[in-house]
Amino acid sequence: MSGGEVPIPVQLWLAFEARDWEGAAALLHDDFVAEWPVSNERFVGRDNFIGMNRAYPGNWHITIERVVTQGDVVVTQVRVDLGAASSYALSFFDLKDGLIVKAVEWWPESYDPPDWRIAWAEPMRL
Amino acid sequence: MSGGEVPIPVQLWLAFEARDWEGAAALLHDDFVAEWPVSNERFVGRDNFIGMNRAYPGNWHITIERVVTQGDVVVTQVRVDLGAASSYALSFFDLKDGLIVKAVEWWPESYDPPDWRIAWAEPMRL
Repeated sequence: MSGGEVPIPVQLWLAFEARDWEGAAALLHDDFVAEWPVSNERFVGRDNFIGMNRAYPGNWHITIERVVTQGDVVVTQVRVDLGAASSYALSFFDLKDGLIVKAVEWWPESYDPPDWRIAWAEPMRL
Repeated sequence: MSGGEVPIPVQLWLAFEARDWEGAAALLHDDFVAEWPVSNERFVGRDNFIGMNRAYPGNWHITIERVVTQGDVVVTQVRVDLGAASSYALSFFDLKDGLIVKAVEWWPESYDPPDWRIAWAEPMRL
């Protein structure tokens, strides 16, 4: 990747935010697969992945918070705001032929910390 | 980072796996902070972070599954096996002066997918 280009996965998030489904699909390789390990889901092919994202309920908005690139691998952290709620995705994208061939996306849901480690921790947010 | 070096965050995971707490502490900057956003916890300083890890219950074992490096930022995906259960951490490390100054670690817990997207998905694991 040369210096001035916008990484393809960043373009994908921007296309999703713009509800530009054709533009998003054009960034995905013919062999595209997405894996969501936390919920044990796999989306095979761009039609399934774009179809699911297009159907995702609510007026969500995506903010790209972090991008880390090494060769044909791009990691992103995005925040998705839906009303007053924020969720986050940590995504590992593999590129091939200048397109996204694989996306492994981790969508954690918040939980309370266990009591045993209270002694060493403080809350990030009150 | 030159080509042959083991990234400092990889050294940290290896030190944890070896229960080498002094070796792990020596990889952390004086200003080290760890954030665990999913459980809303912050560990300020190497003593708190090492103390918590040292107290982590169970005979856990760490496998480093993925490392992505861009300059002074290193992202890792690790699997932690504890008995028959596996959990995962997605970690963003910031390096400063050759040491880890910040770690933002996401520790997702599994959940079931919602019904609305069954039409586009298949299970990753049966």
